[in-house]
Amino acid sequence: MTTEPHMRYNACMKHPNESVIFRQLVDNATYTYTYILADLKSREAVIIDPVYEKVERDVELINQLELKLKYALNTHVHADHITGSGRIKSFMPNVKSVISEASKAVADIHIKDGDKIQFGNEFLHVLGTPGHTNGCLTFVSHTAKIAFTGDALLIRGCGRTDFQQGNSEVLYDSIHKKILSLPDEYSVFPGHDYMGRTSSSIGEEKRFNPRLTQNKEDFIETMKNLNLVYPRLMDVAVPANMVCGLQEPVKKNDENK
Amino acid sequence: MTTEPHMRYNACMKHPNESVIFRQLVDNATYTYTYILADLKSREAVIIDPVYEKVERDVELINQLELKLKYALNTHVHADHITGSGRIKSFMPNVKSVISEASKAVADIHIKDGDKIQFGNEFLHVLGTPGHTNGCLTFVSHTAKIAFTGDALLIRGCGRTDFQQGNSEVLYDSIHKKILSLPDEYSVFPGHDYMGRTSSSIGEEKRFNPRLTQNKEDFIETMKNLNLVYPRLMDVAVPANMVCGLQEPVKKNDENK
Repeated sequence: MTTEPHMRYNACMKHPNESVIFRQLVDNATYTYTYILADLKSREAVIIDPVYEKVERDVELINQLELKLKYALNTHVHADHITGSGRIKSFMPNVKSVISEASKAVADIHIKDGDKIQFGNEFLHVLGTPGHTNGCLTFVSHTAKIAFTGDALLIRGCGRTDFQQGNSEVLYDSIHKKILSLPDEYSVFPGHDYMGRTSSSIGEEKRFNPRLTQNKEDFIETMKNLNLVYPRLMDVAVPANMVCGLQEPVKKNDENK
Repeated sequence: MTTEPHMRYNACMKHPNESVIFRQLVDNATYTYTYILADLKSREAVIIDPVYEKVERDVELINQLELKLKYALNTHVHADHITGSGRIKSFMPNVKSVISEASKAVADIHIKDGDKIQFGNEFLHVLGTPGHTNGCLTFVSHTAKIAFTGDALLIRGCGRTDFQQGNSEVLYDSIHKKILSLPDEYSVFPGHDYMGRTSSSIGEEKRFNPRLTQNKEDFIETMKNLNLVYPRLMDVAVPANMVCGLQEPVKKNDENK
């Protein structure tokens, strides 16, 4: 029996002084996770990695929870689905789309390693975690003890490195130096999981991630030999995501044409 | 802006005296949610509504978390997928399969409204919530402030009532008297969600559930007119689930044949 820190994760409980609202959402078509995090008192909120086709669902929930959505954040330029960060502005015109400077994508706000995203009294701390793409970011809430790792660190895996400026050596360093150096008990909420797991923890990934427990040379060799298929939606998704889903928000009426 | 109790849900944070480990898992083929809940100190655990095809995934996670699985609980006899509560015993022979008395299904242990399921120092309180089937149960953890509602109460919906002893009037009373009488801030973790929402809260369902905010007569009328298709797997799943997935655990070697 163990009570090591790495085992004390994901006790999803109400904190007596709870200060955030947190929701995870799934797009079953692409196994993509979307997250809503809000400051309880001010109701200011962010959405992380919304999916184009799921924007109505997300907007309805945000409205029902009486949240004031401030930012639609992208962890990176996705290759497997179109981001909803542009489309959400058709419903909520004051929302700002956000992506990394390094992505070179069009967005309202560009961020980089070391930046802080404020919503109410809460913050997301921005870590630059390139390697899957060179603009990948991880967002950390120290209040909720959560790292939103996008496609850098996945549960028992990591993002592929064979396109979009992918670089295994860079990814290995990003994950080890930036993500796995967080406290063991922090939860990991990734951009995807293809086996239906919804979260992990830093301690757990340090111990059980079959790719990242290798040394750097073996990791690079593993990544070289994955032989993955070309993403079905890549030729549609990447150009669309380079303008954060939509360069200009579409008016609601236009969408019914 | 509101800070009413019904809005303070799902702040997924670590309690300073956290005493449980909680995980949600998804079967993307049938949109079924499986849950693992464990007592942190003793490592004793339960799994709720495991899915036959996902047992290896669940067993691996339980082993990595160093949990001692005590019970495999079924909220009811499912019509859309085969339970993993029998198959999990092939990997963990000491696990007991559990289902309601009223289901008339074969299992190691039969439970009913008012019973308590103990694992370590933790308890799940059993509520009889018939109506979708006559053996439906809801499990409540007062520590985690979670109601596992199976297919009785779904997020903004409820289980269908047109087969398996379904009864709209009974379901309406079960949900209102047993589930929606729980504190507003309790989370609702259902058996399915077809839109990718992973949780809700009692307060939220009391306010926004389009079916349950109706009066009983209108609810019965709504349920009568759903015109749902016959579940694809029903003729396979119900007989299999009447013996909790497997009457006798299959030996590991037999499965490789």
